[in-house]
Amino acid sequence: MALKALRDRILSDGQCLEGGILKVDSFLNHQIDPYLMEQIGAEFVRRFADIKVNKIVTIEASGIVPAFMVGYLMKLPVVFAKKKIPSTIDNFYQARVYSFTKQTECPIVLNKEYLNPDDHVLFIDDFLACGYASKGIIELCRQSGATVEGMGFVIEKEFQHGRQFIRKMGIQRIESLAIIESLDNGDIKIKED
Amino acid sequence: MALKALRDRILSDGQCLEGGILKVDSFLNHQIDPYLMEQIGAEFVRRFADIKVNKIVTIEASGIVPAFMVGYLMKLPVVFAKKKIPSTIDNFYQARVYSFTKQTECPIVLNKEYLNPDDHVLFIDDFLACGYASKGIIELCRQSGATVEGMGFVIEKEFQHGRQFIRKMGIQRIESLAIIESLDNGDIKIKED
Repeated sequence: MALKALRDRILSDGQCLEGGILKVDSFLNHQIDPYLMEQIGAEFVRRFADIKVNKIVTIEASGIVPAFMVGYLMKLPVVFAKKKIPSTIDNFYQARVYSFTKQTECPIVLNKEYLNPDDHVLFIDDFLACGYASKGIIELCRQSGATVEGMGFVIEKEFQHGRQFIRKMGIQRIESLAIIESLDNGDIKIKED
Repeated sequence: MALKALRDRILSDGQCLEGGILKVDSFLNHQIDPYLMEQIGAEFVRRFADIKVNKIVTIEASGIVPAFMVGYLMKLPVVFAKKKIPSTIDNFYQARVYSFTKQTECPIVLNKEYLNPDDHVLFIDDFLACGYASKGIIELCRQSGATVEGMGFVIEKEFQHGRQFIRKMGIQRIESLAIIESLDNGDIKIKED
């Protein structure tokens, strides 16, 4: 079941672009509506109330706000993986994430101090498409010995099959607040069960 | 006067690195402490209570959380300038920001739909160093006709003179929650007036 406020907003303000792209930059990943974001955070908290986590993890840049909102509401630290290797970090976990835009793999890194075997991680991101960013995060967590307890996405593009991809990596607890069935012919179809 | 919780945290967890770098990635720009961030947001709200703004603006990625916290508390939309030109935006304001790390200029962009002449902007960022990122944002705002009413920084490195640089661009309302006087000899000296 989609979060109603999010569903309504996607239908009113979302735009379909070529190549299976859903543009939601008026409220989610360029301009951010704090009212909607609070509802998104609260819904993640509700859906993941059954699992125990001590840390929220995401990837810069678009995942940062929803992840922070969840961390803020759950009173937990938030760590975001970086897409460039900072000169200030010399001891990091590293994975590679395939980027469609660039048609190449990019590194993601996370300071070793901020993930360890005692950590139970909730990963939050804005989009689940093919699941490549999620794969990168799962790899970073496994390098550190941390456990990924769940993965939450504001919007899932079901037709890009990221959920199956992540499940094959052993993650069963996946929540998406709006699941897009298709964007065919410029028509946004959101799953309604 | 520095925000006490921030000052204490910088002194306990901050690290001085070569080249005038203050590493605060354990609580501000890699791992984020939501308690401290709430205090940071509340302090910005208090300090900027005298000016009227309708939009918070920042630059990805490290500025996003403090800017969002302020937008959340003030119930205002938050817009973050992007460091890459997204394929989904074809109509944007653009400026160039000099980056010390890369020793080159990088573009920052902002969708024209999200800044306009009616906007009164509060810019929030994690660091004020030389002020080059701030300059880029002032330029984007001026292209759009929006007014920059104030600029707020979590940490200002006074010895890099960004404040004078921004003042010369005509911005008078600048607030920094902790002002670092020097990092000489690995000693973090915070202004105490």
